[in-house]
Amino acid sequence: MLVIGERINGMFKDVGKAIADKDKAVIQRLAKEQVAAGAGMLDINVGPAAVDAAGAMKWLVETIQEAQDVPLSLDSTKPQVIEAGLKLAKAKAMINSTTADKEKLDVLIPMAKQYGAGLIGLTMDKKGIPRDKNQRSEFAAQIVTACMEGGLNLADLYLDPIILPVNVAQAQATQVLESIREFRLLSGPPPKTVVGLSNVSQGTEKEKKSLINRTFLVMAQACGLEAAILDPLDKELMDGLITAELLLNKHIYCASYLDAYRKK
Amino acid sequence: MLVIGERINGMFKDVGKAIADKDKAVIQRLAKEQVAAGAGMLDINVGPAAVDAAGAMKWLVETIQEAQDVPLSLDSTKPQVIEAGLKLAKAKAMINSTTADKEKLDVLIPMAKQYGAGLIGLTMDKKGIPRDKNQRSEFAAQIVTACMEGGLNLADLYLDPIILPVNVAQAQATQVLESIREFRLLSGPPPKTVVGLSNVSQGTEKEKKSLINRTFLVMAQACGLEAAILDPLDKELMDGLITAELLLNKHIYCASYLDAYRKK
Repeated sequence: MLVIGERINGMFKDVGKAIADKDKAVIQRLAKEQVAAGAGMLDINVGPAAVDAAGAMKWLVETIQEAQDVPLSLDSTKPQVIEAGLKLAKAKAMINSTTADKEKLDVLIPMAKQYGAGLIGLTMDKKGIPRDKNQRSEFAAQIVTACMEGGLNLADLYLDPIILPVNVAQAQATQVLESIREFRLLSGPPPKTVVGLSNVSQGTEKEKKSLINRTFLVMAQACGLEAAILDPLDKELMDGLITAELLLNKHIYCASYLDAYRKK
Repeated sequence: MLVIGERINGMFKDVGKAIADKDKAVIQRLAKEQVAAGAGMLDINVGPAAVDAAGAMKWLVETIQEAQDVPLSLDSTKPQVIEAGLKLAKAKAMINSTTADKEKLDVLIPMAKQYGAGLIGLTMDKKGIPRDKNQRSEFAAQIVTACMEGGLNLADLYLDPIILPVNVAQAQATQVLESIREFRLLSGPPPKTVVGLSNVSQGTEKEKKSLINRTFLVMAQACGLEAAILDPLDKELMDGLITAELLLNKHIYCASYLDAYRKK
């Protein structure tokens, strides 16, 4: 399971302020804490407020890499902002993300190939979010086909079935779980799947968010999920993730299996 | 999801002592507490120490029914002990359990029909526990066939794929999860599935048991599990169960969905 830490995002008040103030300490602390908690990759998003988004992305990549060796997921709707990060990334990076729109795929697939990066493919297009698992599979097939035609190794593709908040789109959670299973049938070897976890609890009561997040994550793991963008500083969430991996026989049981996972 | 409370079992020291002392208060308190916590059925097992097992079963059924209206799961390896409980049960009961052995099926299927009870079918036989999902499916098919031949409504059958402790049989957890999915293909409408949850954490560190139990339960729910024998007094376990049901769209979201589920 690839854990992609979500905390370095300008949408969070502390990070938005650190970007504006060029305060390296805040960013470097969040990078170290997330890796120590079990993140294998860090998502970086400059947020909507950044005036010079490409410049902010560069500063974030440099700031994190000064403090921590960790692969980065470059998160932006703008290809030029992603590329600004890719140019500086020392380890194999992730492009977060393309949609199924041709104009996005035509730019981001060649970019992933050029920089040897992974690519997250959101199963949606500019007309909007998918209404059910069938529409998710249609978008997924479009993305897989474009990657094959464009010569991107499918091992570098992560399909995101798009979780919606359970309080407004409750029936969608099962559609996402079934999509995680069904996407595996699209190619051999199967494309990987990723979710942006926190979205499932958006708008729910603050004290129930962690419970909803960790419950959905474990359900998705049971369906074959390979990666998730989440808050690794949520200890109970990570305990659930690690225990699900244990039950899926992905690391060996020992009495201290929680600590052992985090230290590896 | 049918929650079958596990606590009235003579294996627990407090219950074993209450049975020996004919102490109704202990049993009735455990019955009320489990129902209040969300149990829809209570498992009753007199334990290995009871001298007169059938008499102890009768006493337990009467004692519980004096205090609480709730269906009972009569848990014994001895058909005559189960029948002693069935004779007194006021609500539709469950027989816990048969194996795939012919001599068991020949007695317990007619007994389930006679008393209008449900039947838990363990996918094992007297030679031992199943080694993988294929063997589980073979035993399951034997049980389903015997129920069809014996005229038992398959809606009354709950197949138990048999969880083993993760610390000694780690690879078995995924086999059980896959069995829960595959059993559904055995008949139409599909047979239901049940697990004896606590077994998955048997022998693990005390402070990790609840985490392992609730993680496995939620994974099994994602695979279609319909019933579980578990400790409803474990609040975090029940919170996970209720949240998984929410995400499976089985009850409607509201800010107080945890309380709402327990009160229904």
